[in-house]
Amino acid sequence: MSVAIVMGSDSDLDIVSKAFGVLDDFGVSYTKNVFSAHRTPDKVLELIKSSEENGVEVFIAAAGMAAHLAGVVAAHTTKPVIGIPIPSGSLSGFDSLLSTVQMPPGIPVATVAVGSSGAKNAAILAVQILATNDDVLALKLHEFKSKMREEVISKDKKLNN
Amino acid sequence: MSVAIVMGSDSDLDIVSKAFGVLDDFGVSYTKNVFSAHRTPDKVLELIKSSEENGVEVFIAAAGMAAHLAGVVAAHTTKPVIGIPIPSGSLSGFDSLLSTVQMPPGIPVATVAVGSSGAKNAAILAVQILATNDDVLALKLHEFKSKMREEVISKDKKLNN
Amino acid sequence: MSVAIVMGSDSDLDIVSKAFGVLDDFGVSYTKNVFSAHRTPDKVLELIKSSEENGVEVFIAAAGMAAHLAGVVAAHTTKPVIGIPIPSGSLSGFDSLLSTVQMPPGIPVATVAVGSSGAKNAAILAVQILATNDDVLALKLHEFKSKMREEVISKDKKLNN
Amino acid sequence: MSVAIVMGSDSDLDIVSKAFGVLDDFGVSYTKNVFSAHRTPDKVLELIKSSEENGVEVFIAAAGMAAHLAGVVAAHTTKPVIGIPIPSGSLSGFDSLLSTVQMPPGIPVATVAVGSSGAKNAAILAVQILATNDDVLALKLHEFKSKMREEVISKDKKLNN
Amino acid sequence: MSVAIVMGSDSDLDIVSKAFGVLDDFGVSYTKNVFSAHRTPDKVLELIKSSEENGVEVFIAAAGMAAHLAGVVAAHTTKPVIGIPIPSGSLSGFDSLLSTVQMPPGIPVATVAVGSSGAKNAAILAVQILATNDDVLALKLHEFKSKMREEVISKDKKLNN
Amino acid sequence: MSVAIVMGSDSDLDIVSKAFGVLDDFGVSYTKNVFSAHRTPDKVLELIKSSEENGVEVFIAAAGMAAHLAGVVAAHTTKPVIGIPIPSGSLSGFDSLLSTVQMPPGIPVATVAVGSSGAKNAAILAVQILATNDDVLALKLHEFKSKMREEVISKDKKLNN
Amino acid sequence: MSVAIVMGSDSDLDIVSKAFGVLDDFGVSYTKNVFSAHRTPDKVLELIKSSEENGVEVFIAAAGMAAHLAGVVAAHTTKPVIGIPIPSGSLSGFDSLLSTVQMPPGIPVATVAVGSSGAKNAAILAVQILATNDDVLALKLHEFKSKMREEVISKDKKLNN
Amino acid sequence: MSVAIVMGSDSDLDIVSKAFGVLDDFGVSYTKNVFSAHRTPDKVLELIKSSEENGVEVFIAAAGMAAHLAGVVAAHTTKPVIGIPIPSGSLSGFDSLLSTVQMPPGIPVATVAVGSSGAKNAAILAVQILATNDDVLALKLHEFKSKMREEVISKDKKLNN
Repeated sequence: MSVAIVMGSDSDLDIVSKAFGVLDDFGVSYTKNVFSAHRTPDKVLELIKSSEENGVEVFIAAAGMAAHLAGVVAAHTTKPVIGIPIPSGSLSGFDSLLSTVQMPPGIPVATVAVGSSGAKNAAILAVQILATNDDVLALKLHEFKSKMREEVISKDKKLNN
Repeated sequence: MSVAIVMGSDSDLDIVSKAFGVLDDFGVSYTKNVFSAHRTPDKVLELIKSSEENGVEVFIAAAGMAAHLAGVVAAHTTKPVIGIPIPSGSLSGFDSLLSTVQMPPGIPVATVAVGSSGAKNAAILAVQILATNDDVLALKLHEFKSKMREEVISKDKKLNN
Repeated sequence: MSVAIVMGSDSDLDIVSKAFGVLDDFGVSYTKNVFSAHRTPDKVLELIKSSEENGVEVFIAAAGMAAHLAGVVAAHTTKPVIGIPIPSGSLSGFDSLLSTVQMPPGIPVATVAVGSSGAKNAAILAVQILATNDDVLALKLHEFKSKMREEVISKDKKLNN
Repeated sequence: MSVAIVMGSDSDLDIVSKAFGVLDDFGVSYTKNVFSAHRTPDKVLELIKSSEENGVEVFIAAAGMAAHLAGVVAAHTTKPVIGIPIPSGSLSGFDSLLSTVQMPPGIPVATVAVGSSGAKNAAILAVQILATNDDVLALKLHEFKSKMREEVISKDKKLNN
Repeated sequence: MSVAIVMGSDSDLDIVSKAFGVLDDFGVSYTKNVFSAHRTPDKVLELIKSSEENGVEVFIAAAGMAAHLAGVVAAHTTKPVIGIPIPSGSLSGFDSLLSTVQMPPGIPVATVAVGSSGAKNAAILAVQILATNDDVLALKLHEFKSKMREEVISKDKKLNN
Repeated sequence: MSVAIVMGSDSDLDIVSKAFGVLDDFGVSYTKNVFSAHRTPDKVLELIKSSEENGVEVFIAAAGMAAHLAGVVAAHTTKPVIGIPIPSGSLSGFDSLLSTVQMPPGIPVATVAVGSSGAKNAAILAVQILATNDDVLALKLHEFKSKMREEVISKDKKLNN
Repeated sequence: MSVAIVMGSDSDLDIVSKAFGVLDDFGVSYTKNVFSAHRTPDKVLELIKSSEENGVEVFIAAAGMAAHLAGVVAAHTTKPVIGIPIPSGSLSGFDSLLSTVQMPPGIPVATVAVGSSGAKNAAILAVQILATNDDVLALKLHEFKSKMREEVISKDKKLNN
Repeated sequence: MSVAIVMGSDSDLDIVSKAFGVLDDFGVSYTKNVFSAHRTPDKVLELIKSSEENGVEVFIAAAGMAAHLAGVVAAHTTKPVIGIPIPSGSLSGFDSLLSTVQMPPGIPVATVAVGSSGAKNAAILAVQILATNDDVLALKLHEFKSKMREEVISKDKKLNN
């Protein structure tokens, strides 16, 4: 496996599944789990350990509110950890964004945008990291970028016709 | 020991020491430690375990930025956990406040105000919890409340003289 | 009675009832009242007095907007007071959160998350406080924590099947 | 006495004294007190009662952080209550502003700007309220407005010379 | 007429009409107008002038977004001006709140809560100001306060039955 | 004259003078005034009228807190109005930014960044507007852009030597 | 063509089309494109170049989230650039507002309100800029302002009948 | 070269130099440049191109206010891009944080904390990414993590002696 994705609650699944889709498109293998930093801290640690043993190179963690999950993963691995802030609760994701990105010196979490855009970007970022050592993935990223460009141009043409 | 106080960084000491002072005044015994949720997660767990074995009834955790420390403690104990948000970094403590208070259902952190006022109140809240089972402490809390009242009245008199 | 719950408006009931459910599950007795800090300050004081006489050990207060209710209770008791910020009005609960948590030194309010998560956690925190002096409750808290853990693991299994 | 000014802490005095200056300039009599909503709730109530007996027509209350003082006064009087949010603590006065202005329906607090500008304006607003029934004060307000205008024009001339 | 109410847009009417209801209940006469500070500045000035000639003692101004209306009124009168921040647009009323309350020294606006609660409170505050010189209104305010209290107590009873 | 600059208070001068410097560099003539939207509304109107008579093509208005000045100017002219939010008071300019930019439909204010960067950019934007009809200015803008580029490149060289 | 309008995504079209309507009403010619600063940076540059060759005098750029589009346009032209912050994603447009308005010194973006009001105002501002050199447009702006005034007055009459 | 670091202004150097120090400690080669996304967009593109030709695997971009630099880099490369929000200007870095992290779907920026903590973490994250393909670096990361742990434990011992 290349990527391990963990979310703090199954209510995050709608958003996090955007990341699954991207990884599927790139043909990158991944595990997906629901483990809470607070309710199942032992399972998070087991997951990190087994992931590393299985060759996982990048972790993606998604959580809402006081979103500690990515930070907990980052505390226990030296692999890159990507954090997706989930906009659950009343505060629109300002809470999960700050809880994910404002990590103290020494333990980075690579934070992406709040919500669905972030979920998609977390997967792309994971692919970018894997691609630093995988020429096929690197090529696919160029194609993905070209395709995005074409889609925008196509929307522009549609607007002007 | 009755209370275990842990802070995420020794730079939090100036603020957290306000809590020491209050506990000293009330004659409540406590331990104090610098352990980071991210840099020394194992030590935090050891501390929780040894604290519980030593009869600690209340935990106080102080941290800044993406303040996960109180949440980590709360994940591993069923004792009450009080969180002090520290205003370190550029965001004035909005980050540590939201990271501490917005805990997901099941794992509460009793959060107090950002900074020094919060540190003092964390200690008072710990005493209030201990006092639910300690009549001497309960009496001291009444005296403390009376003394605070007298101090305000004395400042009022000074203003009007 | 062990816990007194008071909310500032009957429109808070949907959220606060999450706390009732938790206390019912733990078998903790409680009173529930609708009294406003601003519209019925005398009733709030009466409630505090009668609650203390009836052996209440923990107060829970829920209010929205400029949420003063928990602070008013804390001003008149030395028992632990837990505050639930309600997200009523347009400002998403930023107002009630800051009004509840930013208490001045000397008068702590143990603040939990905005809204339903907070309501549930307020009840759990109350149980944790009562359990410092009640071995049966302490045991139930361990079981509750185990059950939460099992529920997460069960959701994780469901995701992977 | 016409106006009763109360502040929650003597550390608010530097800001609140801007209000004293304005009332002195207008020749409006006032009382000034340091009473905390949380530490001396009984003294706040006594103050309201004695103020009303002494003919006070407007209350001004200043407080920082979870600023409940103006709300407490408003809960116990039907006279107009003006609230000055004090920018104490780390959160720049966002906390005291929201705690003062976001009052629930039925109990208004006439809120002015955070800090010194607000303190000055609280006094002017009090004078405006008194002037609805006092032609001499109403005239003075017109003169005050003219004088402010002249001062700005004078600064404009200075800039252009 | 006693009170002049002006709103910046007819889309504010749903919220502002809460103020009409309160004034009707108190038997206070008022005018109501839709005039924009930016689109009809001359009409705002005419309104202020005619209102003062007709004996208006208090102004209420409601506006959303960069809510300048109350400030413009306050710039042209020495009567008390009450501002209601309307939560229009995407920013939930944070914009209208700050634009209304943060007035520079010399020109106060008595600001109430964002939205419907604020509209109701603006009317009550206006009545409180008028009542400083009207014993019948003062008595009605006491009755109103008693009635609010009874309503809360009645809701409390309903909850407990 | 080509540009009229007005600020709400002489305390804004330090920041606004950055705009003077830019206009001097471009050889664009301008007037500068201290007139408050709230304390001297008549002078603001006079200034707009006389400015238009004197051929002013662009207005720049700078103000802090509930910054209405640019909006007042925009209400009375159909010329482009540029607003500079000044970070005075405790709220770091969040208040002046929202009060300046969130104008209702029909009355735009071209808002630039809070503080000194904004003051400089207000002047450049004014030059850009004037340059749509002035080839010499248009050329100077190209040179200005080149010079900025060279300065950055020079700083980059310095860093690498 | 006089104005070039570009949006970062076709999902911005509902809001941006308010600008089309205004320009149509004023009889101002414009181009409209969907080009992303991040997905089609080359197309944005082509658009700027071809727009300048075709006589475009003002650019309008609309984008959401980390809204860089207006800034990118401003980096590559010396024509005035107007930025419309789009409220997409969870953060209500606070992100796009700050990303658009807080431009560094040297590269202004004339920012208008978040969302539909901003879109309409962006078009009016563009007309105001063009009108500095077009007497017919200047006259139309006066008529537009009169018409807005009449509409408000008409709504006021409706309210009072 | 392995890492390319670019900052938008030489005033960011104090903060960004924390990243230099970390990379030096890990023996990772890097380039450092001052190029602005807005003032030298061509130099940013040149830098990306030459960096990729020279084998750069990770980009780090630091900028303040409307921080577009990381986004511009990400638009032109498929390598991982790390963004450091710089807290320049009045808004404490809320602007640069949101401008950096809230990237639209398709173009991720791996965002770290505002200011110095973020600068240090950006470098560590870059090392983590490089280490996915470099066993020596991976080992050094483990040693770095151990050393951080020891430093905390040492501070804890100091506190308790």
